[in-house]
Parts: sequence; C-alpha cells; structure tokens
Amino acid sequence: VPSGLLTIGDYEKSATSLLPVHPRDYYNGGSEDEVTLRENKRAFDDYTIRPFCLCDASKCSLSTSFLSTSLSHPIGIAPTAFHRMAHPDGELATVRGAKCSKSLMIASSWSTIPLEDMKKQSNGHPMWFQLYVYKDRVLTESIVRRAEKAGYTAIVLTVDTPILGRRLTDTRNRFQLPSHLKFANFASVAQEKMPSASNESSAFMNYVSGQIDPTLTWKDVKELTKATSLPVIVKGVMRAEDAVEAVNSGVKGIIVSNHGGRQIDSGPATIHILREIVEAVNGKVEVWMDGGIRNGRDVFKALALGATGVFVGRPILWGLTVAGEAGVSHVLEILKQELEYTMRLAGCPTIESIREAKDIVVHKSFFAKL
Amino acid sequence: VPSGLLTIGDYEKSATSLLPVHPRDYYNGGSEDEVTLRENKRAFDDYTIRPFCLCDASKCSLSTSFLSTSLSHPIGIAPTAFHRMAHPDGELATVRGAKCSKSLMIASSWSTIPLEDMKKQSNGHPMWFQLYVYKDRVLTESIVRRAEKAGYTAIVLTVDTPILGRRLTDTRNRFQLPSHLKFANFASVAQEKMPSASNESSAFMNYVSGQIDPTLTWKDVKELTKATSLPVIVKGVMRAEDAVEAVNSGVKGIIVSNHGGRQIDSGPATIHILREIVEAVNGKVEVWMDGGIRNGRDVFKALALGATGVFVGRPILWGLTVAGEAGVSHVLEILKQELEYTMRLAGCPTIESIREAKDIVVHKSFFAKL
Amino acid sequence: VPSGLLTIGDYEKSATSLLPVHPRDYYNGGSEDEVTLRENKRAFDDYTIRPFCLCDASKCSLSTSFLSTSLSHPIGIAPTAFHRMAHPDGELATVRGAKCSKSLMIASSWSTIPLEDMKKQSNGHPMWFQLYVYKDRVLTESIVRRAEKAGYTAIVLTVDTPILGRRLTDTRNRFQLPSHLKFANFASVAQEKMPSASNESSAFMNYVSGQIDPTLTWKDVKELTKATSLPVIVKGVMRAEDAVEAVNSGVKGIIVSNHGGRQIDSGPATIHILREIVEAVNGKVEVWMDGGIRNGRDVFKALALGATGVFVGRPILWGLTVAGEAGVSHVLEILKQELEYTMRLAGCPTIESIREAKDIVVHKSFFAKL
Amino acid sequence: VPSGLLTIGDYEKSATSLLPVHPRDYYNGGSEDEVTLRENKRAFDDYTIRPFCLCDASKCSLSTSFLSTSLSHPIGIAPTAFHRMAHPDGELATVRGAKCSKSLMIASSWSTIPLEDMKKQSNGHPMWFQLYVYKDRVLTESIVRRAEKAGYTAIVLTVDTPILGRRLTDTRNRFQLPSHLKFANFASVAQEKMPSASNESSAFMNYVSGQIDPTLTWKDVKELTKATSLPVIVKGVMRAEDAVEAVNSGVKGIIVSNHGGRQIDSGPATIHILREIVEAVNGKVEVWMDGGIRNGRDVFKALALGATGVFVGRPILWGLTVAGEAGVSHVLEILKQELEYTMRLAGCPTIESIREAKDIVVHKSFFAKL
Ligand SMILES: Cc1cc2nc3c(=O)[nH]c(=O)nc-3n(C[C@H](O)[C@H](O)[C@H](O)COP(=O)(O)O)c2cc1C
Ligand SMILES: Cc1cc2nc3c(=O)[nH]c(=O)nc-3n(C[C@H](O)[C@H](O)[C@H](O)COP(=O)(O)O)c2cc1C
Ligand SMILES: Cc1cc2nc3c(=O)[nH]c(=O)nc-3n(C[C@H](O)[C@H](O)[C@H](O)COP(=O)(O)O)c2cc1C
Ligand SMILES: Cc1cc2nc3c(=O)[nH]c(=O)nc-3n(C[C@H](O)[C@H](O)[C@H](O)COP(=O)(O)O)c2cc1C
Repeated sequence: VPSGLLTIGDYEKSATSLLPVHPRDYYNGGSEDEVTLRENKRAFDDYTIRPFCLCDASKCSLSTSFLSTSLSHPIGIAPTAFHRMAHPDGELATVRGAKCSKSLMIASSWSTIPLEDMKKQSNGHPMWFQLYVYKDRVLTESIVRRAEKAGYTAIVLTVDTPILGRRLTDTRNRFQLPSHLKFANFASVAQEKMPSASNESSAFMNYVSGQIDPTLTWKDVKELTKATSLPVIVKGVMRAEDAVEAVNSGVKGIIVSNHGGRQIDSGPATIHILREIVEAVNGKVEVWMDGGIRNGRDVFKALALGATGVFVGRPILWGLTVAGEAGVSHVLEILKQELEYTMRLAGCPTIESIREAKDIVVHKSFFAKL
Repeated sequence: VPSGLLTIGDYEKSATSLLPVHPRDYYNGGSEDEVTLRENKRAFDDYTIRPFCLCDASKCSLSTSFLSTSLSHPIGIAPTAFHRMAHPDGELATVRGAKCSKSLMIASSWSTIPLEDMKKQSNGHPMWFQLYVYKDRVLTESIVRRAEKAGYTAIVLTVDTPILGRRLTDTRNRFQLPSHLKFANFASVAQEKMPSASNESSAFMNYVSGQIDPTLTWKDVKELTKATSLPVIVKGVMRAEDAVEAVNSGVKGIIVSNHGGRQIDSGPATIHILREIVEAVNGKVEVWMDGGIRNGRDVFKALALGATGVFVGRPILWGLTVAGEAGVSHVLEILKQELEYTMRLAGCPTIESIREAKDIVVHKSFFAKL
Repeated sequence: VPSGLLTIGDYEKSATSLLPVHPRDYYNGGSEDEVTLRENKRAFDDYTIRPFCLCDASKCSLSTSFLSTSLSHPIGIAPTAFHRMAHPDGELATVRGAKCSKSLMIASSWSTIPLEDMKKQSNGHPMWFQLYVYKDRVLTESIVRRAEKAGYTAIVLTVDTPILGRRLTDTRNRFQLPSHLKFANFASVAQEKMPSASNESSAFMNYVSGQIDPTLTWKDVKELTKATSLPVIVKGVMRAEDAVEAVNSGVKGIIVSNHGGRQIDSGPATIHILREIVEAVNGKVEVWMDGGIRNGRDVFKALALGATGVFVGRPILWGLTVAGEAGVSHVLEILKQELEYTMRLAGCPTIESIREAKDIVVHKSFFAKL
Repeated sequence: VPSGLLTIGDYEKSATSLLPVHPRDYYNGGSEDEVTLRENKRAFDDYTIRPFCLCDASKCSLSTSFLSTSLSHPIGIAPTAFHRMAHPDGELATVRGAKCSKSLMIASSWSTIPLEDMKKQSNGHPMWFQLYVYKDRVLTESIVRRAEKAGYTAIVLTVDTPILGRRLTDTRNRFQLPSHLKFANFASVAQEKMPSASNESSAFMNYVSGQIDPTLTWKDVKELTKATSLPVIVKGVMRAEDAVEAVNSGVKGIIVSNHGGRQIDSGPATIHILREIVEAVNGKVEVWMDGGIRNGRDVFKALALGATGVFVGRPILWGLTVAGEAGVSHVLEILKQELEYTMRLAGCPTIESIREAKDIVVHKSFFAKL
C-alpha cells in the first residue's frame, strides 16, 4: 500500500481523489440531505470512554465469536454493492483482504462477482450472504439455495430497503452501473442490468423499484427462517419493537443499521439506538451494528453499548480503491490496531470485559450535572 | 420546468437569483434579526424519525381530510401576498398549480388578483380564504360575504398581525407594491394602494397601520364565527392558552404559525410549539402548522407531532417565480414524493398511522440519557 | 443622524469604524478572554418569547417607575466613563439625549464633565449618580454631598470593582486618558489624572489600584445608606446571597451586572442570573439589570424575568460617537420602538403585564422534553 | 522576556513559531484524532464562576500546601520529557524558573538532564520525581533510590502509560530524540537511546514498548509504597473506582490526568471528571489535576471543584522555548496573577475559601431550568 496511510481518514481522502465522480458519489453519498449520513459519524463524539488504569495491558485479546463462529476480532465487513467499480478484481480482492485480516465479510446480493466465486476465493474462511428479496420469489429462493450450497454460514436479510432511498447526487449523475459490469448473481437480463435513468430517479432506483419486493413483512422473515438451514440475521432494525419482532420471527441476530444513511434520512445515528435494542432483545439473539465507524474508538464504543461486533462499509471500499486486497486488509488492520490500543489504554483486555465494564462508555450528558 | 430541480432548496436558489431585489427580500425575509425565521427551519433538525421496518411498503396513501374536505395529501398552501410580483399570472397560476397537485390553497386577503377570479380559476377544487380585519368593519364584512359567495369553504382569520412586524430589509428598500399592482380585493383608493414609505417604515408597514384593526380580541372571533356560515380557522396561535381560547370562541381549526418569522422575532419555532397546542385542544378542533417546512421529512414530523396537515409559504412563491403554474405544482409534487418516501421507509403507510405510531418522531434529547 | 441606522448593530458598526483605536478598544472591550462579554449578548438567544395573540394591540404603554420616579419607559443609561473621548460635548450631549428620550441616566463618577454641570444640563429630568469609593474617604464623602446637592435622586454604588479587571487590549494599547481630558469630578492631581502605564497594566488599571478602596464590604454599604439622604442602589451583584446581603444593608435597589464583561471573566451572563436574584429579594427592593442588551426583545426578556428595568452601556456610547445628543436619543428611540413592537406582538400592553404573564419568556430547554 | 507576552496564548503562539517542526509537534500534539486534547481545554468553558462581591479584596493569599509542604501558590509543573529540545539548558532552566516562581515541579523520568543535577539546581526548593516502571525492575528500583537520595520529596507514579498512545504526527515525523540528546537518567544504551522508527510507530513508541512494563497493577503500587520512604502519588487516574483503589493501595495523593490528551483518545476532559474523584476519595488523600489549564480562571475552577492544586504541562514548555528560565517563570507569574485577579474579583481571598464557597463554580447546565 502507498505509504503515509495511518487512518481511515487518510484512506477516505485518497480514495475520494482517485475515484471517478459517479462511483465516488455512489460510494460516499447518502440519501436526501445526508443528515443521517453525517450524524452516524458525528454521534460517536457524543460518547466518551472512561478508562481504567493499571489493569495489566500486556494481555489483550480481540477474539470473540459471531453466532458460534470463533473470530480473532469483532470487526466485520458490511455488504456493499459493485466492488468492481472500485477495483478491477472487485469482490475477489475484498474477499482476499478479508481473509488475510480474518474479518467476517458479508457478501452483497449485488456483487459484480458471482457469489460462488467469492466464497471459493475465501478458501474456507467464513462468510455470510446478504439477501434482497426479489419480487420473483422463485429467483429469490434459488439465490438462497446457491448461498447455502456455496458454503455461506448465515443469511443476512436487509430489511430497510423496500424501495431505494433518494440519493440526490446519484439522480443528478443519472447513476448507472458501468456497461462492462452487471449484477453477477443474476442471469436473466431483467435482473442483471439496470434499466435507464430518468430525470427524477437514477437507473439504480428504477432497478430496485422494478425488481425488489416492497411488500415484505415479518411473516416473510418467519418463512425464510424455516425455508433455509442457515441462521437468518436481519439487517436494518432501528427500533426496540422491531427487534422484538425479529426475535419472535426466529432470527438468530440483528444488525442495527440505517444502511449508512442511504435509506430514510433524518433518522437517528445507529450508535444512539444501539443500547435500546440490546436491552429489548435481552440476550436472546446477538446484536451488531454498522454505520459511521471510522476508527477503533468507535468500535470500542459500540461494544461497550452492547454490540457483539460491528461491520464497516465505506472504509472497505476506500481500501479497495486505494490498494485492492492489500488496501482492504490494511484498513482492517488499522481498525484492529486502534481497537487494541483503546482496549489496553482503557483497561479492558478482552471483548467481554468491554461489555461488562460499568459505565466504561457514557453519553456526554453524564458530565452535565443539573 | 427547468431541469435539475430536485429539492425545495434547488427552487429557493433558483428563485432567489431570478427575482428582483425588492420582491426577493420581501418574500424571503423575516422581521428584525430573523432569529425566528431561521429557527423555524433549523428546529426540524432537533427531531428525529425512528423508522419501523418490514411494514409492506407497497401500499402508501397520503389521503386525509381537512375539516370534512377529503384531500389526497396533507400539504396545503399558506396564504401569501402579492403573487404578481413573482409571475405575471400571479395568483391565477398558483391556483392552477394547486389544483393540478390537489393541494388545498388558502387565498390571501392581499392577493393581486380578485378573490372571485381566483376561486373561479380553481374550478371546483376547494379553497379557503384568509381574512384580515380592516378598521373599516363594513368593508371587512363585505369581504367575508364575497368569499362565501365565491365558494370558499372556510375563513382563515390571521391573528398574529395587529401591526406589521418590522422587516428591516423592506424598510431599507422602502418596499412598495410595484405601481402596476394593487390590493385587488379592494376598490377604494385607500385600501387598494400603499401609502408611501418613510425612513423608518416601509410603505407596507404604513398600509397595515393605516388600515388593519389592531384592537381585535377573541370577542371579535366569536362574533365572526356567528356572522358567517363558513367554518372559521385562526392562524397564528402560538400558546396553549390561546388555543383553548380559540376552541371556546367557536373556531373549527387552528393553524400554529408565527407568520413565517415575519411578525414577532425571537419567538419559538412552530414545530417546537405544536405538541403543546395539540395536547391543549385535545381533539376538539383540528390543528395545522406552517413555518419552515422545506421537505417531506419536515411534513412527516409535523404530522407525527399531531398536526392534521401543514401549509407551506415561501416554497410556493419560489415555484411560482421559477416556472409559474408548473413550478407551483412541481414544488408540491416534490414535497408529496418526499413525504411518501419517508412514510414507506418509516413503515407508516397512512397519515393516520403516522399520528398513531408511538415515538415515531422524538426530540433529540431522547438520546441523551442523563 | 446619518440615514440608514435602524438597529443598535448599525450604530455599533458605524461607531466602531469612526472611533480612534484606543477609545474604540476601551469602549468595546472586555476583560481577559472576553468570554463574559460575548456571553452577555449571546445568552439572550437562550430565551424565547411565547406570544399571546388577540389582546388589543392598539393600547400599549411603556410607562413604569424606578423607585418612586415615574418614567415613560424602563430603559435607562448605565454609567460609563469618559464620554468626551466619543464626542467633544461628552456627557453633556449624553444628558441632553437622555432627557430628550426621557431615559433615566446614571452619571459615572468618572465623567469628563463635572457632576454639577451634567445635572444642570438635565434641566430637572431625574438622574442618578454612580459612586466609586476612593481610599480617601473624605474625598468620597464630599462627592456624595455634591451629588446630593446637585439634585441627583439616588446613589448607585458599584460593588464589582475593588480592582480593575484586566482588559488586555487596553494593556497592549497602554491605554491612557487623552491628555486634554481628566476625571472632571476631582480637583487634586492624584485623582484627576491617570498615572502612566506599565508593560503589564494600563494607566487606567494603575489609577484604580492607586485610588479605589479595595477593602469595601457590606458594612460600608450599611454606613453609606445611613450617611446619605438619598436611596442607595448597589450595582454589580451576581448572586442570590449577595442580593440578600444588599437588602439587609438597607439598599433600595440592586442592579444585576457584571460590568459589561469588564471585571471578572468567565462569569455568567447577567440574563442567566437575573431570575435567581429576583426570587431571592422577593419584592423587598427593586432589581434592574444591565449587560448585553442590544434590542427591544432583550429588554422584554429582562422584564419578563423580573427586572424593574434595564440599563444600557455601550449602545449609548455608540450613539454618542455617531451623532452626539441626537445619536444617544436615537439609540434610545430604537430600543423603545423595538420594545413596543414586541409588547404589541406578544400581547403584553403594559410593563406590568410582561412581568405577570406566565412563561411569556422561557429558556430554550423548555422545548427539550426528555 | 520579549515584550507583548500577556497570556499563555501569547506564549503558545510564539513558541509554536519558534520551534522546529518535530519538537513542536511532539510538544503540542495529542493522540489519534486529538479529541481529548481539545476537550481538555474546551471543557473549562462549560464551567462558570459565580462571583461574590464586597469581600475586601485587599487581602489575597494564594498560599497552600501539597502533602505537608507549604507552597506560596497551588500551580505546579507537570512532568514533561526532553526539555533540551526546547532550550539548550533544558530541565536546568525549568528548575530555575520553577524555583524563581516558587512552583512545585515534578521532574520527568525522561529528562535530558540527570535527576541529581536537576535537584541540585533547585537549591533546596522542593521537587517531586515522576517514575516510569521499566521492565527491568532492578533498574527501576535504582531510580527510586537515586530520587530518594537526591532529595525529591515524593514519587509520582504515572499509571496511564502501559503503552504509548498513538500520536500520529510523531509517527508521520518518525519522531526520534535528536542525536545529541539522551534519556539522561539511564546509563545503559538500551534505555538511554531510542530505537529507530518504523512506518507505523515513532522511535519513541518503540522505546516505550521495548522498555516500559505494561503489566503494572495496583499490587505494584502497593509494593512501591512499601519499598520507598517517600510518599507515593499516582498520576493518570480517571475514574472513581480507581481512585478508591489508589487510596487502598496506600498512596498519599492522586493526580487526575489523561496525560494531556496523549494517551487514550476520546476520553473525558480532566475537569469533567475531577469532582467525581474528589467525592470518591472523600478527603482521605489529596487530589490534583492537570490537562488543558491555560489561565488563572481554569486554575480557580479546578480548585473550586475540589483540587488541592493543579499542574501545567505545555505552558511551561512554551515558556522554556521562548525565554528559558525567565520564560518558565513568566508563564507561572501570569497564571498566578490571573488566579489572584480571579480570587479578588470572585470574593475568595484564600485557596481554602474557593474550595468552601458553595456553587462558586457551576456547570453551565445550572442555567438551563427545565
Ligand atoms: C456503496 C454502498 C453500497 C451498499 N450496498 C449494500 C448492499 O448491497 N446491501 C446492503 O444490505 N447494504 C448495503 N449498503 C449498506 C452497508 O451494508 C452498511 O449498512 C453501511 O455502509 C454502513 O455504514 P458505513 O458505510 O458508514 O460503515 C451499502 C452501503 C454503501 C456505502
Ligand atoms: C411573502 C409572504 C407573504 C405572506 N403574506 C401573508 C398574508 O397575506 N396573510 C397571512 O395570513 N400570512 C401571510 N404570510 C405568512 C404565511 O401564511 C405563512 O405563515 C408562512 O409563510 C409560513 O412559513 P414558510 O414561508 O416558512 O412556509 C406571508 C408569508 C410570506 C413569506
Ligand atoms: C466603556 C465603559 C465604561 C464603563 N464605566 C463604568 C463606570 O464608570 N462605572 C460603572 O459603574 N460602570 C461602568 N461601566 C459598566 C456599565 O455601567 C455597564 O455595567 C455595562 O456597560 C453594561 O453592559 P453593556 O455595555 O453591554 O450594555 C462601563 C462600561 C463600559 C463599556
Ligand atoms: C511534551 C509532553 C511530554 C510529557 N512527558 C511526560 C512524562 O515524561 N511523564 C509523565 O508522567 N507525563 C508526561 N506528560 C504529561 C504531562 O505530565 C501532563 O499530564 C500534561 O501535559 C498536562 O496537560 P497540559 O499539557 O494540557 O497542561 C507529557 C506531556 C507533554 C505535553
């Protein structure tokens, strides 16, 4: 990797200057006024880490497990679409980077490499598969079967995208998947290519409203949990009530997510909503979060507020853009290293100890004694 | 309409550059330091939408009713004066745009087109008439009679303008109605033309202090409700106590409004005060709000905090300036579309469901757990 | 007066550009980091006016009384030093402006015109005299006697200046009273002229530490109340406990003040502390405030939070600089007019009604419902 | 000293422009995103001083005692490394400046002058010695013995540095102790020189991870208190629980510190955490704080919130850079003078009276009455 890249911010700057305008805007942007996009990141500043001292910082282990998969650290890769816009090797490079840094990756339904090829590239390292439910339910079922067969170990159902959020720069750019790329998991023309853009909606928005089933409810989740041998995780839950629904529907995990500020705008930052959901599920299933994580302190805060682990989206795309496989891996190494430093300096030598330490992370209002 | 206009912000920018300075300042400005003007808009950021997921987003209806008029959506047009400064067709274009987008429009007393012509242009689509009470009570009564006869279905009495707020740029501009325009609802010279400006007050301020009756009290409201066959709505209520007075005076509805930050300055944003008033009237009459609404999330928030519907002022003037009837209609379509996206993504398929969903919109202090 | 001056801000800008650097910095500056100076003004934004509507705005009276002097409005002139730096006529012009706008003026001990000449110029209009207690107590007593004899109707004892606050720009400027001016109330060289500046303190700081008695306590206040036939008011109280001390010492009034942010820095804005003091004195004596008042809404807020009236410092100096007597008077007229507009638009037709209206002014936290 | 230096800010600006880039960044910087570095300073703005008036400001004494050493003021010098990067005389100049201004200085383990020479230079004025525990415990014990023998009167054990915080500019600069300087307290090559830098860690980080014992726990503290005749103070406590541990381990004092924002990032400002710790120790040992103190108001606030005294780090380095011994002394004189001004103007004539005055310093939320 190029030298001088010490933080995710360095990667962001570098990738943002390297990418052509349309992919850059697609990757970096959020919906509408991007209030939630900005808030996801900013909200971490509302939380403060209150360190313990003198806890023997020589020992520090980041190892943990997601469902029953043992992992050497709690930082996963969120599903993001179209990696070949960032790098010629696309998702294959991402998978290699993930494997190299032992990160659990969630493959997107909308990869530009077929799901089987991705899983094969992972060479035994565990991966989850993110599912969008198409109006064509036969097609959808076939995708689930293929994911099972390819060796993915969980299905992550995205529940926040009945329609695509209005990402205004994409609309202005008339954003369209470059003609040499396609939705590689799909063979029929309708689902493989985007339709054209209009003045008021990008090609991508039109694709989603044409293909994705907006009628989904918790009933479908329940059916999915029965229709597959794999554990089902729902991604995009933002309220305690829905977390309870999820538990009752038989899912094995919940990812608190607002899709990186790309779906509903003016919604809460995920870190603000995490604790409420952790308390609502009360240990019955595992809870992760994604959105706005840009350094190891952010990861630490999410764990302290009850997450089993976190997923990162854009940072991975920036690593991929800057240096392919090596960039993906380096981004993860940075986050891991920052997390480890934070753990040692906060006196929390294990992931478990972060979750158990009382008030190790507090909202800043803690210091305003009225 | 010109291409590239995706948001109300786009319209604002465009109209602001198209308008001559005096009308631009008259439309865009507020009173004194414009604290309330800015706060009306900013305060929406204090509220966050907590979305439900998996609610079947295929169905979504914006339909609702104001008083007993069925409407296909809850976004009305606030009464604003002097539309012919924005477009040669003036209020006639606005009425056509409103009709085209099925928006309930409140005609201003101070239109540059006679009230009868406006109503006729609406071609059966419902409209309300906004009333200012002149010192000349005979004249005032004749206006009410004409509104009844023309077919308006409610009288909206503005209660926040006993005198005109000091709008400093208008004073500096010595703002004056252009000489080819007049107060089209009035035939006598005194009420049809503005007097001249002074160093310390615009021509418009002098008009108001010369013509409008500052002595108005709730007694006059009670009399008005008796003197007209139409339902009376009061516009400009900003306190629970006054909302109760309004109910007791026999009005059928209340518009929470601070006149778009053009009357008293350093008063609260309307969105901050809405819930207090909704609770005070306790369902006895309908409550709407206006002020600072610039996108569909804002509309959603107002509905969630208890409004029956909302009215927008300046956005309509910007639409009218940029593209006449089509601009007015497009501004409304943008707001409707944004509202619909928000409803689908928040899991609220009907207007009723927004109002009933618990904590669907919360103040940001919700996330500060002391 | 020059045209185009509509607000105190207009006067501030104009005066700031007209004044030579040293007087400008002396007038405009505060102590140390000027935190309190800025906060005095900014803190008014934390308070919001919740207007009543339909209260008959035709009647509006600003008349009130300070102690038992009837006044046509509640906006007085705070004592400020060295007016001849702003205008050749100095305090004489200020007195004429005050009289013209019927404002109660407090003459400073440190005027550049003798106290007798000022009082004579007022031509019967009531004035108060601000007292600094000199180490030379005989001299101090003679000043009190002269004030009594000249016809001042109260003694305002400044209690926040045992030493002079460090005003860094004055130190850097080696601020010195211009050689053609002197402390006009004093005849002996020691008290009439400033000593020279040092690297670490302005000439003015050295004057104060040389002349002013830093040992003052409430015992001295008690003695003063006995030693003069005039009512004594203390200026510079910032805590409830001291307000109670003041009452017990026999004073007739309290001015809540932090000397316009020129004494202790990092102290509270006066508007924040006002209510606490009003509640502590519980009606036993009158309470005024000064500090940061720049428009009529600020005056309204102070009255609503319990003040009998307010005093303004710098705005008067700006008016004096820009247009002498006429400027002083115009500044006061602006504030009066703004107060009147606010009263009419808030539904408070009298000064008394502002004080009695429930929650007419609230802290912004009123809208954050946790 | 050069003229025109009136505040610590003036010294900061001057030193920052005088220093070569690498030492400048090492002195001024913090770890990671420098959130804590900035917050240390900013957080003082959240606290407000509520002054008493009329308390006889002629008497004012800053004298106090740390442990049982009488001191003429409560402003000590925090231990900071490598003073010869700032000035050729290095720590010797600092010691002379400290002595001149009667400030209690804590000598750093990592001085560029041997500890014996520093103590000798102090010429009887009391000093404390800051200890880092090396992996080589024999070496560590010998350092303690030398400190005892040299005449230091307390051992200050730093407890927040099991590993060195990631200071990104130092990493980018490949920060290295200049070759003519060394860790003067150590004779063996390993501990006297820094190893070389890598791409991901400065030479200094590598030194610390090579030499410093990261396994330290409260057990070691207990042993240290027994192994030395000197009182032991722990520096770097940031939680009430750890303060209680400290008391139980037999220490005689606690310095609330986050190492000037150089260790864990995104932790709280020290001023925010002070009161919690003072309450936890409940008078059993003395509590000081450091971090972000830049003027006398800051010192006052720390004392009011319960500190026995404060220590300043960077301001001393800036003084040393600008004018050697005289600069160090002048920086201290500025702080003392500002503290004295604040005490006189706040009506607190003694250090004790600051600590005892009720609500003399409050969090700004004090003024938000919900
Ligand atoms: C460019 C991009 C594409 C995305 N594509 C998908 C996707 O295909 N499926 C999905 O469930 N989430 C998708 N997401 C959302 C991410 O999974 C994740 O929620 C989000 O990126 C987390 O926020 P962060 O980018 O701030 O880390 C996408 C996000 C981005 C930025
Ligand atoms: C240019 C302009 C003219 C207005 N004229 C009137 C009017 O004639 N009668 C009235 O009741 N309100 C009038 N208003 C107030 C509006 O009805 C409404 O309260 C306000 O515009 C809502 O705020 P918004 O512009 O931020 O949407 C006017 C507002 C503006 C901006
Ligand atoms: C230039 C100047 C001179 C002042 N001189 C005096 C004075 O001689 N005696 C006194 O009691 N207060 C003095 N003050 C304080 C004022 O009386 C008053 O408290 C303050 O100006 C109010 O704040 P404002 O300027 O923001 O209105 C002075 C203030 C200024 C700005
Ligand atoms: C350049 C520098 C070097 C430091 N070296 C040490 C050290 O050797 N030992 C130690 O315990 N603390 C060290 N510290 C931390 C200081 O003792 C102190 O906690 C911090 O500087 C206080 O914050 P301030 O600089 O904002 O006053 C150092 C701080 C700085 C800025």
